[in-house]
Amino acid sequence: MQNYPSRLLESAVNELAKLPGIGRKTALRMALNLLKRHPAEVEALGTSVIKMRNEVNYCRECKNISDQEVCAICSNPKRDKGLVCIVEDIRDVMAIENTGQFDGVYHVLGGIISPMEGIGPQDLNIASMISRMDSGVIREVILALPTTIEGDTTNFYLYRRIMNFGITVSAIARGISIGDELEHTDEVTLGRSILNRTPYESIISRKQS
Amino acid sequence: MQNYPSRLLESAVNELAKLPGIGRKTALRMALNLLKRHPAEVEALGTSVIKMRNEVNYCRECKNISDQEVCAICSNPKRDKGLVCIVEDIRDVMAIENTGQFDGVYHVLGGIISPMEGIGPQDLNIASMISRMDSGVIREVILALPTTIEGDTTNFYLYRRIMNFGITVSAIARGISIGDELEHTDEVTLGRSILNRTPYESIISRKQS
Repeated sequence: MQNYPSRLLESAVNELAKLPGIGRKTALRMALNLLKRHPAEVEALGTSVIKMRNEVNYCRECKNISDQEVCAICSNPKRDKGLVCIVEDIRDVMAIENTGQFDGVYHVLGGIISPMEGIGPQDLNIASMISRMDSGVIREVILALPTTIEGDTTNFYLYRRIMNFGITVSAIARGISIGDELEHTDEVTLGRSILNRTPYESIISRKQS
Repeated sequence: MQNYPSRLLESAVNELAKLPGIGRKTALRMALNLLKRHPAEVEALGTSVIKMRNEVNYCRECKNISDQEVCAICSNPKRDKGLVCIVEDIRDVMAIENTGQFDGVYHVLGGIISPMEGIGPQDLNIASMISRMDSGVIREVILALPTTIEGDTTNFYLYRRIMNFGITVSAIARGISIGDELEHTDEVTLGRSILNRTPYESIISRKQS
């Protein structure tokens, strides 16, 4: 797919193709779709992404994206400031918030350590995490990073940084998904779910509460 | 996925999710990717789509997207102006040009007739097509529309409009793709490929030329 008949079209396709997961064919389809739309709609798309990039703010406390200096979660007096859940990005915050099971606060790393992609600890919101740990308010940290090699590496790095503060460090449970059949579960997950078995009394008491 | 922590983010996700084939989850992934990029890159994306929509030009002859008043194909003296290939959109022009097998010119409809989507003949570049037919220059028209019900409907509509001008009307061959196994070809295609069989001499003479 070369020889675009218009440099304006080619330029838009080039830019759209830089979006994650978008190849040149899809980008061309998007550009042709935009050409059929009202100019005001295309203006809305273009200005909204520019405005977001230029004006977006990050919460002073947890580094989550926010329109205020401190986000709605960190400024909520009902949230437990002693319990911090460490996540990769805002999507994880949204996913955990949707469960309604967590009343602590978050710390958003903005990525995970990945030597393959050249992302080291200095590229993540770790310095701000350490100064939060240093404040003496935090009682427990829950590591809620992806269950990948990069996630495990980051977990271990963070654990070694946090352990000096005398803070309890836990990680989200890994095990069989609710509704999954054992025979269809991969061996690593199944093995871990046996090693990390949960006392049955704690399951019963949770259901009753 | 609701409760975005930032209206700027939500607005960008809403706009990105209007792109064809992009759901809200993908749009959020795109927005987070844009937030990690340099502001100048996001500016380039936003302005390129706005500029394309506002400044794009269509060839006076064939209605293809072009930066000039007449596109490079229509203004090329080596192209056969008596042979017009009718296509749905610019992607088809690019695909046919890439084959290097066509030395005529095009007419880009900008869509096909689709009662389901409320697209009728008046929404397409058909009036301009008729005035080209009326000019007396055109000897043959090749219908190269999608092999769908909508494509067939549009073909038949165009044929009835063109037949009055005493112009030869042909359609691109439908048959077995090169390299395909007969047993994996659908029945309709296989049936048509027998009905529309090609004289073997014409295949041999094409290979020798």
